[in-house]
Amino acid sequence: ITVDLERYRIRPGESVDLATRATDDTQGLSDSDEVDDQFDEHLDALDDLQERLYAQGSQSLLFVFQAMDAGGKDSSIRKVFGPLNPQGVRVWSFKVPSKKEAAHDYLWRIHRRAPGDGYIGVFNRSHYEAVLVEKVLDLAPADRVAKRYTQINDFERLLSDEGTTVVKVMLHISKAYQLERFKRRLRKPDKFWKFNPSDLDTRALWDDYMAAFEVALSRCSTVHAPWYVIPAENRWFRNLALAQLVRETLERMDPQFPPPDFDPAAYPPDSLV
Amino acid sequence: ITVDLERYRIRPGESVDLATRATDDTQGLSDSDEVDDQFDEHLDALDDLQERLYAQGSQSLLFVFQAMDAGGKDSSIRKVFGPLNPQGVRVWSFKVPSKKEAAHDYLWRIHRRAPGDGYIGVFNRSHYEAVLVEKVLDLAPADRVAKRYTQINDFERLLSDEGTTVVKVMLHISKAYQLERFKRRLRKPDKFWKFNPSDLDTRALWDDYMAAFEVALSRCSTVHAPWYVIPAENRWFRNLALAQLVRETLERMDPQFPPPDFDPAAYPPDSLV
Repeated sequence: ITVDLERYRIRPGESVDLATRATDDTQGLSDSDEVDDQFDEHLDALDDLQERLYAQGSQSLLFVFQAMDAGGKDSSIRKVFGPLNPQGVRVWSFKVPSKKEAAHDYLWRIHRRAPGDGYIGVFNRSHYEAVLVEKVLDLAPADRVAKRYTQINDFERLLSDEGTTVVKVMLHISKAYQLERFKRRLRKPDKFWKFNPSDLDTRALWDDYMAAFEVALSRCSTVHAPWYVIPAENRWFRNLALAQLVRETLERMDPQFPPPDFDPAAYPPDSLV
Repeated sequence: ITVDLERYRIRPGESVDLATRATDDTQGLSDSDEVDDQFDEHLDALDDLQERLYAQGSQSLLFVFQAMDAGGKDSSIRKVFGPLNPQGVRVWSFKVPSKKEAAHDYLWRIHRRAPGDGYIGVFNRSHYEAVLVEKVLDLAPADRVAKRYTQINDFERLLSDEGTTVVKVMLHISKAYQLERFKRRLRKPDKFWKFNPSDLDTRALWDDYMAAFEVALSRCSTVHAPWYVIPAENRWFRNLALAQLVRETLERMDPQFPPPDFDPAAYPPDSLV
């Protein structure tokens, strides 16, 4: 089972209309044992690829997740990156900047968390908040926000040039779907901690956020750091698509076990004491 | 199935003779479906406990792993902490200190990596290297090493007083078992990257390392930060014991979902739009 991921990739400079992009697409697939098996097969492949990446220790992978509240960032990260070796994965959540972080430019805290050689970095929200919430809420002057798309592209090119493969994912849901998720959280006391009344303020600005996403997707999907808009309402499909995307990305990176830095012939196993 | 973990806990001040502590103990259990089921049951419980810990956001857990090479630190961490939500777990490996790290006291780099509120931190090697390898290889003056046990206890007490539960595990293997693991690595080109000829130099000093471990275990197993010496040659037993240890530790911490910081009655689900 192969998902057509190209359908979700934003071409550099392409104008993006999120309203025309399905949030519940499954490419004709249905939730089935075959899909589960395919997902598990992706995880097995990822296991091997990650071990090689870590052993090789000369390149790294960065996956960026953005979505509206209840878009499934947390559960996507858990499902797709959770099964990997936790020693080689670092997940960073970027919330409202701390006082110290806010005293620096908006890429400072991001750059510090970029993955090192051999590692997979996962960002739950990212520098894109600087052209999403900061734009929508006028937290930064418009002329500064206007410069950020180029700054972000330059920054991601730096990472790419220096050995980090960058892939960005927007988990795409509808406003109606978000409503159902919010209701669900408010029906379960165990989920109250995931709800914040300010989420409703953000929801009220849905169209503004979609417009900000569209500009960011169009201007910052590059050859070296593409954006994918993944339909995220069917979780099994979202997980399948993401696992395939991570796998294909790592396969293109083609990590190899490094040559030993010793002469194996000098250490015949049976001579060890 | 309950493992008697007290058998492996070092009492504060207890003199430790590692040669008398089994490396292949299974407490009469054998590898079976029942053991697998019990392990899975622990993981399910950990899942819930971790979500509460993260949601509560007011205390944290630190697990420290130390072992000789091939003792199973990597695979233990993967098996027991891998299934948790990667967003709430940070695994840090402490290798030879970088130039910058070495320019500070030996606890500086450790303290920076201590888990924040709501997080589980896992250390693959730790500040104990300062009383193990640095002692055995005379990398630090003996009078400075002598002071470190108290410094470490004070440091761990600080963490504990401020909300971090600290548990330390030595994965205990025999010298003969290590030999078999080394041979295995040298027979598989895919595993060459895990082997370093310097591992043999360390192996040659096995007895010195055991003596250094014995002092550290005896002097630094405290009520607030106990050491456990877990028999690690039977991996299924090791995993079972560790999962139970993490679970019991979190159960004692008893994390609870926080009260909502809003009035749920003010947000009836069906009124949301």
